[in-house]
Amino acid sequence: MNLTEKKIDGKQVYNGVIVNVRMDQVELPNGKAAPREIVDHPGAVAVLPLDEDNNVIMVTQYRYAFETEMLEIPAGKLNPGEDPWVCALRELKEETGYIPGEMLPLGASYSSPGFCTEVIYLYLARYLEKGEATPDEDEFLKIEKVPLDDLVDRILQDEIRDSKTVAAVLKAKAMLERY
Amino acid sequence: MNLTEKKIDGKQVYNGVIVNVRMDQVELPNGKAAPREIVDHPGAVAVLPLDEDNNVIMVTQYRYAFETEMLEIPAGKLNPGEDPWVCALRELKEETGYIPGEMLPLGASYSSPGFCTEVIYLYLARYLEKGEATPDEDEFLKIEKVPLDDLVDRILQDEIRDSKTVAAVLKAKAMLERY
Repeated sequence: MNLTEKKIDGKQVYNGVIVNVRMDQVELPNGKAAPREIVDHPGAVAVLPLDEDNNVIMVTQYRYAFETEMLEIPAGKLNPGEDPWVCALRELKEETGYIPGEMLPLGASYSSPGFCTEVIYLYLARYLEKGEATPDEDEFLKIEKVPLDDLVDRILQDEIRDSKTVAAVLKAKAMLERY
Repeated sequence: MNLTEKKIDGKQVYNGVIVNVRMDQVELPNGKAAPREIVDHPGAVAVLPLDEDNNVIMVTQYRYAFETEMLEIPAGKLNPGEDPWVCALRELKEETGYIPGEMLPLGASYSSPGFCTEVIYLYLARYLEKGEATPDEDEFLKIEKVPLDDLVDRILQDEIRDSKTVAAVLKAKAMLERY
């Protein structure tokens, strides 16, 4: 069975700062038409910086969407046309000051593929050298080291819910054990 | 350091079918004002249905946002005021026909907390009894059983990128090994 939905019409319904929204009409496999409301996002990167003692450099930020501070791995949005690997190095340095000697891909994460185009490219950064953090003027964050195994425990206890952090921590843990 | 951002103003900038968007103005910790563009989403549930042979009942759907078919655990949006546990049972039955004898929480996932309020409540469903699937008239999906360990491998190989599927599979795998 071919599940493809073909675009038959569409219009831009919101042009924002971070996201745009379009409302497309598609033809379903049964020939009927249906609306598809899609949030377009530029994409992002997230980096799990792991030191030689198996601590992760974590960032705490206020997340206005949830009205709470959240513990996450360092991350940031892609600039237009920017290479994800370059962006990951830049964001890691800006937010934490660390420069990695090695940065390995941990795959990508589709945050919410039912309605949003956001892709987050994940990396594992190791052999860290400390430089100076240079956060944006209006970026407020706290940096702390947390043992990787503590992060795994806190994810399993539902204390960490950020999808990119969950994906990167559990994938890194499995890969480091496996290879 | 208190990182709280206080709302000082806000307006609705898009009212859609699945999402709404608001543009709020907040006061930062340094007293300056900044915009916060927030996508409001009703929330969702996702269920990892595991049979007695450690196979997962998976759903393949066309995801228009990525113009491709995607292999995911069964999921669906919350109706207004609906209990996530009730919603999970309903969506599992509708999409796959299965009725679980046990459904355990696997925590929740914040898809993209930087700009979106979506929460996905995750469950592990076991002791499955097969009933009749009743997908919505305009819902087209393929059902297949995939061994849990194959899903773990495919996640580590970056073949499965859906964030709710990644979170539920890796959390279920870790919990089943641990307890």
